[in-house]
Amino acid sequence: MQFISAQRFDDDVVEREFTIGEISGVLWTPASTATPTPLILLGPPPLGLRKSYPRLLGRARHAVAGGYSAAAIELPGSGDRPRNAIVDQAVADLHRALAAGEPVTDDIVDRLILPLLDPAISEWRTTLDALLALPEIGGPVGYSGGVISIGTRLAVVEPRVEAAVLFAGSYVPRTIFEEARRVTIPLHVLLQWDDEGNDRQMALDLFDAFGSKEKTLHANMGGHTGVPHYAGEAADSFFTRHLR
Amino acid sequence: MQFISAQRFDDDVVEREFTIGEISGVLWTPASTATPTPLILLGPPPLGLRKSYPRLLGRARHAVAGGYSAAAIELPGSGDRPRNAIVDQAVADLHRALAAGEPVTDDIVDRLILPLLDPAISEWRTTLDALLALPEIGGPVGYSGGVISIGTRLAVVEPRVEAAVLFAGSYVPRTIFEEARRVTIPLHVLLQWDDEGNDRQMALDLFDAFGSKEKTLHANMGGHTGVPHYAGEAADSFFTRHLR
Repeated sequence: MQFISAQRFDDDVVEREFTIGEISGVLWTPASTATPTPLILLGPPPLGLRKSYPRLLGRARHAVAGGYSAAAIELPGSGDRPRNAIVDQAVADLHRALAAGEPVTDDIVDRLILPLLDPAISEWRTTLDALLALPEIGGPVGYSGGVISIGTRLAVVEPRVEAAVLFAGSYVPRTIFEEARRVTIPLHVLLQWDDEGNDRQMALDLFDAFGSKEKTLHANMGGHTGVPHYAGEAADSFFTRHLR
Repeated sequence: MQFISAQRFDDDVVEREFTIGEISGVLWTPASTATPTPLILLGPPPLGLRKSYPRLLGRARHAVAGGYSAAAIELPGSGDRPRNAIVDQAVADLHRALAAGEPVTDDIVDRLILPLLDPAISEWRTTLDALLALPEIGGPVGYSGGVISIGTRLAVVEPRVEAAVLFAGSYVPRTIFEEARRVTIPLHVLLQWDDEGNDRQMALDLFDAFGSKEKTLHANMGGHTGVPHYAGEAADSFFTRHLR
């Protein structure tokens, strides 16, 4: 793990960009802390770290203010990384289907999500190894955000992730519904009820499928990017219960 | 309004039973308060005040600890009040349909809820007149609990109710879906995802129908009576935002 930049904000949040091989990411930690912090992995929107940076930074500073460290990595095919032709074609097909008022087929959803899933999970796990080796980061670890399929699989395969706030703002391949039944960690699922980039019934079906004994769905108005501030506060309470 | 009993608990909550004509109810207020309190109307489960008293008292003391007064009234046909034969028959038909795995028809749901609706609303409004005339109670007023059809209609017809936490734990007549579109106050809807006394899709459809610009759905596990404590805390935050 190599740190390639560092800056300190007024609120004593230290932001460091890092690389681990071809993985690139950002880590936010408190400028000083008496004990190693728990860690929240921020699932970035598929727009890429740079485009989503302002919102990501807001979430990260909020997390650090709450006593956590936070990290995000560039998804495969996002930002400056080589595009994934299959996913790009699926995005185009998705937009065409939505514009034509046609159903979004399983085939489109599979091509949209599945090619990213294995590399994203693998890179999160490598990143987690590196982050947990830092003296300022202890645990436990939570995952927060989208892509919900990534969060779901990470919850199944990565025992170090102990709780997850999942943002139901993306399409979900059928295979993920099967995996969802194997999730047992506490889940807090956020759904924007009239999300224009989502399928509400799919999100409700996925929530239903999760095997977790403790799972909560918070649905709000305001469109894909309009998550109200009090939804964030409820998610804070969830992490406080499970990571502190 | 006549107070027919009074007792003071260790936590300085004063509980008074009251009657207003044939209406009977319970009022919980702080033993002393510098300014008139906002008021939360507790929608009681249809079991009746006496059977639901322990849970109701818990909710009331929690409300008073938060700086509110709280009140509940006996639903028509509940507790010691004369039974409603139409509703009783509908309850029997409902149980028979559920036991037989048959669909719960609109006819059953209408007979289950509609006969109670007009008198319940009328009695809540009369009670509200009396409560708001007390010096220790100011406003604003919130409604919290079931029966969700009662809460919905009250939100439409009673402008003094400014925010509502609605418990989606009962069947909903079709006519209420129409009324739901006319609700504009902020809503916080609680749904027990695997509620055995409810129809989940009906609850989701009702949430969708509400006309309120601010509406939030919190779905949790644990069955009809298993609302987790953190769901109560989220409802507290909602009332804090809107009634304080």
